[in-house]
Formats: sequence, structure tokens, C-alpha cells
Amino acid sequence: MVHKVAIVGSGNWGSVIARIVGANVIAQPDLFDPTVNIHVYEELVDGKKLTEIINTQHENVKYLPGFKFPTNVVAIPDVVEACKDADIIIFVLPHKFVKPTCAPLVGKIKNTAIGVSLIKGFDIVPGKGITLISNVIKELLNIPCGVLMGANLANEVAAEKFCEATLGVKSPETGAVLKKLLQTNFFRITITDDISTIEVCGSIKNIVACGAGFVDGLGLGDNTKAAVIRLGLKEMIAFANQYYPGAKLDTFFESCGVADLVTTCYGGRNRRVSEAFVKAGGKKTIEELEKEMLNGMKLQGPETAAEVYEMLKINDQLERFPLFVAIHRICIGEIAPDKMVECIRNHPEHM
Amino acid sequence: MVHKVAIVGSGNWGSVIARIVGANVIAQPDLFDPTVNIHVYEELVDGKKLTEIINTQHENVKYLPGFKFPTNVVAIPDVVEACKDADIIIFVLPHKFVKPTCAPLVGKIKNTAIGVSLIKGFDIVPGKGITLISNVIKELLNIPCGVLMGANLANEVAAEKFCEATLGVKSPETGAVLKKLLQTNFFRITITDDISTIEVCGSIKNIVACGAGFVDGLGLGDNTKAAVIRLGLKEMIAFANQYYPGAKLDTFFESCGVADLVTTCYGGRNRRVSEAFVKAGGKKTIEELEKEMLNGMKLQGPETAAEVYEMLKINDQLERFPLFVAIHRICIGEIAPDKMVECIRNHPEHM
Repeated sequence: MVHKVAIVGSGNWGSVIARIVGANVIAQPDLFDPTVNIHVYEELVDGKKLTEIINTQHENVKYLPGFKFPTNVVAIPDVVEACKDADIIIFVLPHKFVKPTCAPLVGKIKNTAIGVSLIKGFDIVPGKGITLISNVIKELLNIPCGVLMGANLANEVAAEKFCEATLGVKSPETGAVLKKLLQTNFFRITITDDISTIEVCGSIKNIVACGAGFVDGLGLGDNTKAAVIRLGLKEMIAFANQYYPGAKLDTFFESCGVADLVTTCYGGRNRRVSEAFVKAGGKKTIEELEKEMLNGMKLQGPETAAEVYEMLKINDQLERFPLFVAIHRICIGEIAPDKMVECIRNHPEHM
Repeated sequence: MVHKVAIVGSGNWGSVIARIVGANVIAQPDLFDPTVNIHVYEELVDGKKLTEIINTQHENVKYLPGFKFPTNVVAIPDVVEACKDADIIIFVLPHKFVKPTCAPLVGKIKNTAIGVSLIKGFDIVPGKGITLISNVIKELLNIPCGVLMGANLANEVAAEKFCEATLGVKSPETGAVLKKLLQTNFFRITITDDISTIEVCGSIKNIVACGAGFVDGLGLGDNTKAAVIRLGLKEMIAFANQYYPGAKLDTFFESCGVADLVTTCYGGRNRRVSEAFVKAGGKKTIEELEKEMLNGMKLQGPETAAEVYEMLKINDQLERFPLFVAIHRICIGEIAPDKMVECIRNHPEHM
């Protein structure tokens, strides 16, 4: 079977994936249709439509300047038009846009299509807590939906520096096809069926990164940072076990787990803004620093911390997650950053 | 029972531990004898004996300047004298000195004594491979021997910055006593019975740190570094499973595992010298850089890589450990550092 591929989303990461997918489908004509549609949210760049720029210059000059698309990647502003014939739909857009972007697709895509989500973050069910983005897609569009996550800073992948990613799919056959679609010489993929754990890691790492940033801001050193990262990992595992029974310990050793966590806690904007927050000594909020430092990009850590906090509170689980709780309370200004260590000194892990 | 404690070794880390143990025994007179003997290898510092300096100034001016010992820590140059009445003997000295230091203790210590090793590195059995230092102590002295390891840069622990460590002991009762001896408000301890895994982690992390240093030297970025750390962790797990059956996956989530590995791969001298090695572009060997950069201290990574390589070769296991093998070959100059990625591109993990 020849699979037709569509990509929904054309930001920084979506554009990098389009380069990989565009090259891989051309190289494997027995497996994939040679044209890859990419749904581009239409906007004007210097007075020209972004879709037109992409389709003539073969470059996303706004979100991935300096890297060309293969010419078989075709930008389409209408999401239904982009996806209607697709067998594989890759979702790679900010999590807030998932529902409005998917809504017009209901009933308009192949009923045999499969989805792959590259989206970090949770969806919120008021009064109940969080739900996974792959589940939102699955339920809205009535298709199976896998995930792909890992230690993948977009510009380094674009520059073809060696890295790994974790693909989560339920069916091994689907996994084999998607691996052929996504793996390259420099972008190496491992497969697991533990989809929800991959997704939990991809979101919750940003909470831990705030904790790592606080440690940096406080000048507490390498040992304390290692302890915060480790306790964060242990709370990630406990969270996955609590809410997604069947989570496999092995998954945390995949790129989506420990590798992505470490990269995010040493680089990454959540760490950086959190460090600045401590150094500002109460004179600026995280929101203010976000505006100052991130040029319009949003921080996911503080928001995810608030969402996880609500979920834990609803379920009376706050005491099992002292690090997550402390990070949330620091983010909203309820306690001072230098109280974090006090909050984890008697962590359940040390009992 | 009141336990008498002796410490064998008085370098940087041994001195830090002596501060902790000295304070803890005083605070728990029902559990511990108030005097802690520390065996100090006698040397002259500005013409004065180091033991005399420690016993009068209560400071190890050579290896931990700026931090005082409690006055109940008594330096003794003779190892038999230091240990003869001890119920708990803490070994904390470079691994090369274990056998010569333990030899005079044979038959001279209590037969009910227990040992705790804080020593990183392996012992070599010619033609057979490596053996664990805790096993060397156990067999030489005919006592049980636990281990204590973790993300514990000595000077940060001395400065009482928050961190964690992993205590490995077979008996839960012994574990409870040792935890009371070693844990403080800032030095938090978790217990497992998986002694050999703790020790494997403590040595092998230094191999991985060389790989991380090569990535840094080559300017390959955060994703590649995360991949090398993750593949290193997976090879650590495979190595433990291969040679120490019964290794628990949980142990790698302890401070001795992922936390110590990460700290060593971002800070640490193995990383630093390995980075410099790449940047020297073949003009200097690792041994030359070691002499230049480390002021007499020895690198453990390249040595451990060679030891592990020999062990894997003897057992025909080289193919399962492409990262360890690549790092060894780079360290000895057999392949260029920029070949490392090529060696791990088709890692068994990616099959």
C-alpha cells in the first residue's frame, strides 16, 4: 500500500519534520505517495502569503529560515484540503490549537487514516483534570493516534545533528511504516506501545525544568540540581502510574524520558526564565519575564504545573508530589523559591 | 548496641564524610560511640604531620581546607589502630589503594564488623575482567560490605547544599543503622539491596562522561549529548544485567544512577578533559591533557573504558556496547572523535 502523508502545523518543529518526511517519501515510492501536504496557517510575511512563499521558495522563512523544504512538500492553507486524502496525518501545532484545527476535519478524512501527535502539553477537562492530546485527536476524529517525542531541539534536528526520538504506537505494523517515514541517518527512532507515558514525559518535563531553573537561580550547585531532576523523574513515574496504569518503567529510559528531561533541565526556556525569576528577587513575575525574554513564545512549565496541581488536588494526591507542588507554588508566587529545598527534604523517596 | 565507627581514607570525599559522621555519632549516643577514628595516610604539610594538624586544628588543610571536623574525629596514621575496635568501617580512598590498605587489617578487625565502600572504580582480575571493590573488601576481610554512591560533588556536600545518595546493603537492619549514621538534613539517603548495580553505575558513568565531553568538543549540541547520555545509560543497564544478574531497573533511577550520570556528564573532569582532547585536534593525548589540566589527579573514564573493553572482548560482547567501545577507541587514539556518532548510528537500541 502507498500511504499519503499530511502534516498539520508548520511552525519551527513542524517545518523540520516536513523536511524529513518530504525526503523520506521520495526515497521510498513503493511505500509513500510522493507529495506531502502541509497545512499552513495562513499569514502574511512582508506582504506575501506564507503558503505562497513556501510553495515558490520552498522555505518557511518565518519559522525555519535558512533550511529548504524538498519541492514535494506543498503548503495548503485549508486544513480539510490538506488532509482529505491522507492515510497518515502528523499533528504538530501548539496544543491550544488542536481542537479548533481538528474541528473542520470531523467526517472529512479517510476513516482508515492514522494520526501521529508531536504536540506537547495537556488538554484540560474542567473539574476532572487533564487529558492527553493524542486522546483528544483520537476522540475528535475517531482515528488511532500515536505520538513522537524526544530530546529534539528543532534547530539542531534541522541542522542534521545526530539525535533520537521515541515513537509510540499500538500496532507494530503501523510502527514499522511510521519508522520508515520518520527515521533518517541522523534522527534515530525507537518504538514502544506505551503512548501515554511518552506524552506524560513530554509535558511534565517542563515542570521539572522550572525546578532546575530555580536551583540555578539560587546557585545551589550540581548536586542539588541532580537531586531535583531525579526527584522530578520519580514524580513523573509516580504520576504516570497513578493516572495511566500500565506505564512501563523502560519508557522513561527512552529519548522521550530521561534524555528529553535532561536536555530541558540544562537548556530550554523554562529553565532559563525560572532562573531569571529567582535572580529578579521578587521584583518580576514569571509572566513579566516571559514577555521580556521569549519574544511572544509561551512558557509551558508554569501552566503545566498549575494543571497537574489541580489534578492532584482533585484526587487528594498532593502529598505524594512535593516537588511538583512546590514548583507550582513558587511559579504563582505563593512561596519563595528558596523554600523549594525545604519542600523536598522529606520527600516520600527518602522515607 | 552502640556502634563504633572508623573511616579509612581522608582525601576530599573522606573528609566530607568524616564531618557528617562525626556530627551524627555525637547526636545519637544511644546508637554510636562518640569517637570516630579516621585513618589518615601520613604525609607532611609544610613540615608538619597531617594527622597532627587534623588532631590539633581539626581541619584537613590539604584535602578539605576551610571546613572543620567535629573534635570527636580523631586522625590515626596506623590503619589497624584506627579500625581494630570498629563495628562499622567506611572505606573511602582511591581504588588502587584498597588492597594494600586492607592487607594489614586481615585478622585484626572484629569479625562482626561491617564495611561500607564509597570507592568508585573496578578491580582487575587479569584474563577474566573486572570485579567490584565491595567484593574485594568482602573477600579480603571476610565481612559484609555495602556501598554509598550518588551525585555528590564533595565540596558541595561539604558546603551543606542539598543532595541525595544511594546506600546499598543486603540487610535492612544494617541499612537502618547506616542511614542514621550517614543521613543529614542536607544529605538524603535512599536504601536498596542492589549493591552491584550501584557500584557499576558509580564506575561506568565516567566512561559515558568521556562521550559527553567528545560531543561538547565536537560542538554537536544538546540533542546529541542527550542521545549519548541515554545510550550510555542503556549500555550501563545492559552491562549490569550481563555481569550482575538480578540488577534492578529501579536502581538506575536512584541518585547513584541517572542523577550521578547527569552531573558527571555536565560537570566533572572526565567530560572536561575529553572536550579539551577533541579541541586539541590530535595534537595532545588524553594523558598529556590529564597532566596539564588536573594537577596530579587521575581520570577514571579512559581507564574504566579500557577495563570494560577488555571484559567485553573476553566475553565476545563488543557488538552490544558500541558506545563504550567507541569511547575506548577514541581515548586510545585508535579512531578520531568525530567517528563516535558513526559508531552509534546503528545502535542495537535503534533496531
